[in-house]
Amino acid sequence: MNLFELARQLFDAQPFSRFLGAELTRADADGVTLSLPIVDHHTQQHGYVHGGVISYLADNALTFAGGLALGGDAVTSEFKLNYLKPAKGSRLEARAEAKGAGRRQAVCLCEIYAIEGGEATLCALAQGTIVALVK
Amino acid sequence: MNLFELARQLFDAQPFSRFLGAELTRADADGVTLSLPIVDHHTQQHGYVHGGVISYLADNALTFAGGLALGGDAVTSEFKLNYLKPAKGSRLEARAEAKGAGRRQAVCLCEIYAIEGGEATLCALAQGTIVALVK
Amino acid sequence: MNLFELARQLFDAQPFSRFLGAELTRADADGVTLSLPIVDHHTQQHGYVHGGVISYLADNALTFAGGLALGGDAVTSEFKLNYLKPAKGSRLEARAEAKGAGRRQAVCLCEIYAIEGGEATLCALAQGTIVALVK
Amino acid sequence: MNLFELARQLFDAQPFSRFLGAELTRADADGVTLSLPIVDHHTQQHGYVHGGVISYLADNALTFAGGLALGGDAVTSEFKLNYLKPAKGSRLEARAEAKGAGRRQAVCLCEIYAIEGGEATLCALAQGTIVALVK
Repeated sequence: MNLFELARQLFDAQPFSRFLGAELTRADADGVTLSLPIVDHHTQQHGYVHGGVISYLADNALTFAGGLALGGDAVTSEFKLNYLKPAKGSRLEARAEAKGAGRRQAVCLCEIYAIEGGEATLCALAQGTIVALVK
Repeated sequence: MNLFELARQLFDAQPFSRFLGAELTRADADGVTLSLPIVDHHTQQHGYVHGGVISYLADNALTFAGGLALGGDAVTSEFKLNYLKPAKGSRLEARAEAKGAGRRQAVCLCEIYAIEGGEATLCALAQGTIVALVK
Repeated sequence: MNLFELARQLFDAQPFSRFLGAELTRADADGVTLSLPIVDHHTQQHGYVHGGVISYLADNALTFAGGLALGGDAVTSEFKLNYLKPAKGSRLEARAEAKGAGRRQAVCLCEIYAIEGGEATLCALAQGTIVALVK
Repeated sequence: MNLFELARQLFDAQPFSRFLGAELTRADADGVTLSLPIVDHHTQQHGYVHGGVISYLADNALTFAGGLALGGDAVTSEFKLNYLKPAKGSRLEARAEAKGAGRRQAVCLCEIYAIEGGEATLCALAQGTIVALVK
C-alpha cells in the first residue's frame, strides 16, 4: 500500500470526518489536501461556513501533514488559525505542509480555500505543532 | 428579552451547532458556557473526541464571550488552541470569558473540559480575538 | 538551595535578560513573576514599550513557569501573544503559571502588566507550550 | 522618498531596534526583511540566541510587512511563534509577507533564519494579525 492509501485509510477511520463529509484527496511528499463539499448544516447564523468547520479542516490537515513528515500516526498538539475572509461556495479545500520536522514533532502550515466555480479564495491560515504518537 | 435569551437565540440560529448537538447553557456578565453531549460520530480514529469538535467549541465559545463583551454580534478573527489531554466522557463543556475589550475587539480565553461521572477534566485551552460586526 | 534560588540562578545566567534589565522576582508552586523597569531604549516609534520587549517577557515567563511544572530546565516550543493595550509606566510585570503538565511538556498562560504609580494595567496575554530539556 | 526609505525611517525611529542592533534591509511589494548581527548579549543560558530576540524580530517583521500591505503605520495585534531549531551563527534574518489584507488589518507570515557562513537555517515561524493605526 502506498503513502496516499495509508493516509486515506487512517483518515476514513475518523467518524467525525465522515460525519462532516470530508475527504483526503492528496497525500504526498509535499503535504496533504482535504476537501469538503459545503452543505447547509456547515453554516453559521449569517449563511457562511461556520468557523468550526474551518478549524476542523485546519486541525486535521495539519495532523496529516505532520504525520507524513514524521512517518507515522500523529496528533495535533496545538495550532493557531486566522480567518481571512467569510467562506462560501461549493467546496472547501485545506492544503497543509510541514515546514520543519524533528524526530518527535513537526511544525506545519495550512491554507484553507473556498472553491466556487473553479476559483479558489484563501479564507484562513493555520500554523501548528504535530506530535508523533509513541508506538 | 434578557442577555442569555438573546445569546441563545443567536446560537440556535447556527445550523452547524445544531448539527453537532451543541447548546449554549450560560451567558452572563462573566462569560458563556457551551455544552455538547459526546456521541460516536464526534470521535477520531482512536476513539477520543476529534480535535475538530474541540476547536469548534473553542471558536464558538470565544465568539459568544467576545460578543457579550462587545455588546452585539461578533465573529472570531483568530484563535489559538492547545490540546492538553485526549477528550472522552459523556459531555464536553467550553467556558469562555473576555480578558479585555475595546470598542471593536475583545481578547478572550476559553477552557474546554471533558465531563465524565461528575468529574471535569481540562482538555484544551484557547485564546483568541473577537471582532464586532459593524452594523 | 530552594526552588526560587534555583530558578533565579538559571534566569541570571541569561545574557539577554541582563542586557534588558529583567529580574525574576517570584518562583513558587503557583508560577513565576518577571519584572522589568521600563527605560527609553525599550520603546518603539510612538513612545510605548516595544512589542518585542513584551514578547521577550512572555516567552521567558512561560519558560520558567513550564520549567517549574516540569521540574527542570526547559525551553519554549511555541507561544501566542495578544497585545491588549499600549504599555507604558515605570515597570512591566509578567506573571505566568502552568495550566497543565505531563512528563515532557506543559501548557502555560502569562499575563503581562504595565505598572504605573501602584496601578497594574493588563497589557498582553500569552499562551504557550514548554518542553523539558532531555538531560 | 520611496517605500523602502519610508519604512526604514520608521524602523530607525524605534529605540528598541537600535538597542538590539537590528536593521531593516528590504521593504518592497513582496514584504520586508530584518537583519540582526548576533552578539553575546543576545543569548540565553545555553549559548543560543534567546527566544525573546527571535520573538522581537518576528513581531517587528510582521508589523512592517502588515504596514506595507495596509499602506501606513500599523501595530501588531497578536502573533504566534513556533521555534523550530536553536538559533546560532553570525546573523538572524526575518522575512515577512502579507498573506491577506483588508482595509484595516492584514494577516502576515514570517520566517526567521539563522545565517552562518552563507547558509540559512530556518529557526522559527510566525503568523500574526497587523492592524492599521487610525490617523
